[in-house]
Amino acid sequence: MTSVTAEATEAVVLDLNADLGEGFGRWRLTDDDALLSVVTSANVACGFHGGDPSTMRRVCETAAERGVGIGAQVSYRDLAGFGRRAMDVPPRELADEIAYQIGALEIFARAAGARVSYVKPHGALYNRSVHDAEQAAAVVEGIRLAGGALPVLGLPGSRLHEAAQQAGLPVVAEAFADRAYTAAGTLVPRHEPGAVVTDADTVVRRSLGLARDRAVTAIGGERVPVHVRSLCVHGDTPGAAALARRVRDELEAAGVRLKAFA
Amino acid sequence: MTSVTAEATEAVVLDLNADLGEGFGRWRLTDDDALLSVVTSANVACGFHGGDPSTMRRVCETAAERGVGIGAQVSYRDLAGFGRRAMDVPPRELADEIAYQIGALEIFARAAGARVSYVKPHGALYNRSVHDAEQAAAVVEGIRLAGGALPVLGLPGSRLHEAAQQAGLPVVAEAFADRAYTAAGTLVPRHEPGAVVTDADTVVRRSLGLARDRAVTAIGGERVPVHVRSLCVHGDTPGAAALARRVRDELEAAGVRLKAFA
Amino acid sequence: MTSVTAEATEAVVLDLNADLGEGFGRWRLTDDDALLSVVTSANVACGFHGGDPSTMRRVCETAAERGVGIGAQVSYRDLAGFGRRAMDVPPRELADEIAYQIGALEIFARAAGARVSYVKPHGALYNRSVHDAEQAAAVVEGIRLAGGALPVLGLPGSRLHEAAQQAGLPVVAEAFADRAYTAAGTLVPRHEPGAVVTDADTVVRRSLGLARDRAVTAIGGERVPVHVRSLCVHGDTPGAAALARRVRDELEAAGVRLKAFA
Amino acid sequence: MTSVTAEATEAVVLDLNADLGEGFGRWRLTDDDALLSVVTSANVACGFHGGDPSTMRRVCETAAERGVGIGAQVSYRDLAGFGRRAMDVPPRELADEIAYQIGALEIFARAAGARVSYVKPHGALYNRSVHDAEQAAAVVEGIRLAGGALPVLGLPGSRLHEAAQQAGLPVVAEAFADRAYTAAGTLVPRHEPGAVVTDADTVVRRSLGLARDRAVTAIGGERVPVHVRSLCVHGDTPGAAALARRVRDELEAAGVRLKAFA
Repeated sequence: MTSVTAEATEAVVLDLNADLGEGFGRWRLTDDDALLSVVTSANVACGFHGGDPSTMRRVCETAAERGVGIGAQVSYRDLAGFGRRAMDVPPRELADEIAYQIGALEIFARAAGARVSYVKPHGALYNRSVHDAEQAAAVVEGIRLAGGALPVLGLPGSRLHEAAQQAGLPVVAEAFADRAYTAAGTLVPRHEPGAVVTDADTVVRRSLGLARDRAVTAIGGERVPVHVRSLCVHGDTPGAAALARRVRDELEAAGVRLKAFA
Repeated sequence: MTSVTAEATEAVVLDLNADLGEGFGRWRLTDDDALLSVVTSANVACGFHGGDPSTMRRVCETAAERGVGIGAQVSYRDLAGFGRRAMDVPPRELADEIAYQIGALEIFARAAGARVSYVKPHGALYNRSVHDAEQAAAVVEGIRLAGGALPVLGLPGSRLHEAAQQAGLPVVAEAFADRAYTAAGTLVPRHEPGAVVTDADTVVRRSLGLARDRAVTAIGGERVPVHVRSLCVHGDTPGAAALARRVRDELEAAGVRLKAFA
Repeated sequence: MTSVTAEATEAVVLDLNADLGEGFGRWRLTDDDALLSVVTSANVACGFHGGDPSTMRRVCETAAERGVGIGAQVSYRDLAGFGRRAMDVPPRELADEIAYQIGALEIFARAAGARVSYVKPHGALYNRSVHDAEQAAAVVEGIRLAGGALPVLGLPGSRLHEAAQQAGLPVVAEAFADRAYTAAGTLVPRHEPGAVVTDADTVVRRSLGLARDRAVTAIGGERVPVHVRSLCVHGDTPGAAALARRVRDELEAAGVRLKAFA
Repeated sequence: MTSVTAEATEAVVLDLNADLGEGFGRWRLTDDDALLSVVTSANVACGFHGGDPSTMRRVCETAAERGVGIGAQVSYRDLAGFGRRAMDVPPRELADEIAYQIGALEIFARAAGARVSYVKPHGALYNRSVHDAEQAAAVVEGIRLAGGALPVLGLPGSRLHEAAQQAGLPVVAEAFADRAYTAAGTLVPRHEPGAVVTDADTVVRRSLGLARDRAVTAIGGERVPVHVRSLCVHGDTPGAAALARRVRDELEAAGVRLKAFA
């Protein structure tokens, strides 16, 4: 924040990531083809909360064609709950489940001529590994088991990022233009009023602020610095792909350079 | 069969393979530790008919320590039926499911300092790909997708082996000492009387015959040539590990050299 | 067909059935609320190919409120394949799986003040039990195990209907306005050209013909008698609910009385 | 405890319950046939943590033949973790999942000429509903949804029992002869030293104490009153059925009358 002027002289570089491939068999959820024209990094569901093998293959093929980064969106094993129900999985089991998912996705990434280039937990595992050091460490152990020292995409300051750094894994910070922030720079919990920003214009404006000013207006009105390399756009609601497209277009119009981090 | 004398001058080399890691979560089925002291190749369940991630990791670790080959025992997605119920899976889906399983196992093999060195279908998929050219081709397509031109362990003359050869994959033939053979050298279908040999002494004698004479006595009494590189021993019944141990000991006592094919 | 005049003097009574509740967890497929305003019988997915417990409860509640009949849409256990992959499930297991599904649905039907009033197999199990006497008998055994002598909704002349009748269960015949028929009155297999009628006007016209004339024009142009008590409308494609609504409106405008069979 | 003499004039009546049917497909865990000769109440797994439909049917048939009470052993949906991993399932979903399981079991109980006569949560759901009022209420809501005001078997003083009583459901208290108790009469958490009693003689002696003296020696040596109608014996470890048999025999030799509560 101290060098806004200096930064302004060179283009801001940002990654756009979204959850993709979250259908399962007959069911579709995300408009994968549209999103893969917008994002620079694709968080690909690996079969535990969504994501069947054929969808994984197709998403990897398209991502590779378009130069979109492929990340393993690892999850609790919970198709019925879409990975949104926190589970007390023992750390050893959790690490092994993480590695399993990364391995399965890696095959399809390679077949498409690419590689899995990062890991991002999904849903309840994402939320839990913000605060739960034990589960965060298990996720990191799973990534290490899978080899390759993959970067971990997540919230700055999270236990997950701490555990990754201790293990020597690169971390990549992300922000959410459609989530309210506290004055401390953390996310307002989803169940609180105003936690989710639904107005499209506001989402776009906040995206621009996060990119150019590296700051966001907190729920109490304060201006809060948020330094991130990636911005997460959501893909699983009606109109999501169109809003993501608009965010991208306006970022580019504002001179932001969109580029995968990995 | 014409050169038994010549063959006797050099040691017969044989692989012993068994299905391993076929528990799931709380449930155990195979005595993995005991079997990994006996076999030279371990067909590791990959989670679709059995085999949870932690079991896969442990089996790979022990196999790597003991120099046992690691094969992906790929299956239909059918935990409830243990992969023993034939399924009309469309070829594209089946190929992708095969690749997914190989990828998941590959992570654990690598973490243990080894590699997946072959593929063997399980249960109903094994049986079906003996005769069903479409599903056999899908299995091969899945292996190709997974990369690495992995050898395919299976019945000589099967559609699976034909498809593998057409695709340029190595094939490895296996025999079953505890299954009855027809005069044509094929297996007597399981539901027919006498299809399964349960007497331990007979299983041992037939194992020796398959190794040294490269032949077996068919159900009608004829002597039938059976040339294979690997012998499959079963691991999922009580006493299975002990019988496998005895087969190994007697093969070694008879001068057979036990060695993984891959 | 010989008594069209006589029949015309009394209102034709027809049931409209559709597959409902075929989402799972986060995933939605059928517009259940809209369809429950159209059909007189709801084939409710029971969790094996789709249909989570909360969806089952909600569909039963709405169906009961609106006087729509509740049927158990039983399936192979195959979420990944949406029950569309034929499986060689041993008859005893299949019967038990059928009973399990009926039992689960019955709880929600009762909680809503209604009852499960019929059974209709889904997808591959439906198709297979047309021709496969063994699996048809297993479905019937499952229904008998569940008690109550529930009617079986299906294709006239199917093995399923034969098995049901032998077991003393009522059978209810259904037709498909959007499927081509052979001159023999059977369905043209889906993979053949022209098997599925996609034009909405044609579907409506065929619906009217099936209701009033009890006949349909076969794929070769012949007029074929088709006597059924129920007409199946599809609910799992975009626009499906709207088309179903139109079929219902035109049937009623033509004097057809829509009424559940059970 | 003050009226041991008075109590001695009439036979103590006790129920013995055990978890049964906890295999799944190919996997077996509990020796159901042996246990059904010992217990008076069978907690039957309903498919969510174990228990396939055919096992459920067989267990219900044998239980009905032998006059053993049939209880629904309801669980989180977690085959991979055997229902032992606590899950934050939203209350509405959890209630519906409970009802689903009860309904499925009810079909097999009825087919055997019996009824589901009580409900007991399994594993992590059991443990969580001791302290978590929200999940306890959801379990009770599921039981109410299933109808019939079924008794709830569980720990005396648990939130589950509180919620059941508030909802007008009967409660049945149980004790564990193989678990250490605190001076307050609660169970010593499993992860603490000495929490599980493994010595068979001690388990038998504690069983007798719980039955006749309605008391147990706590981990600190104090004598603690424990008034229960049922004693839980475990069935999922080697030798479990033999120990359960011995507990039953010694209880009967001591004049305790074993009788199902429902």
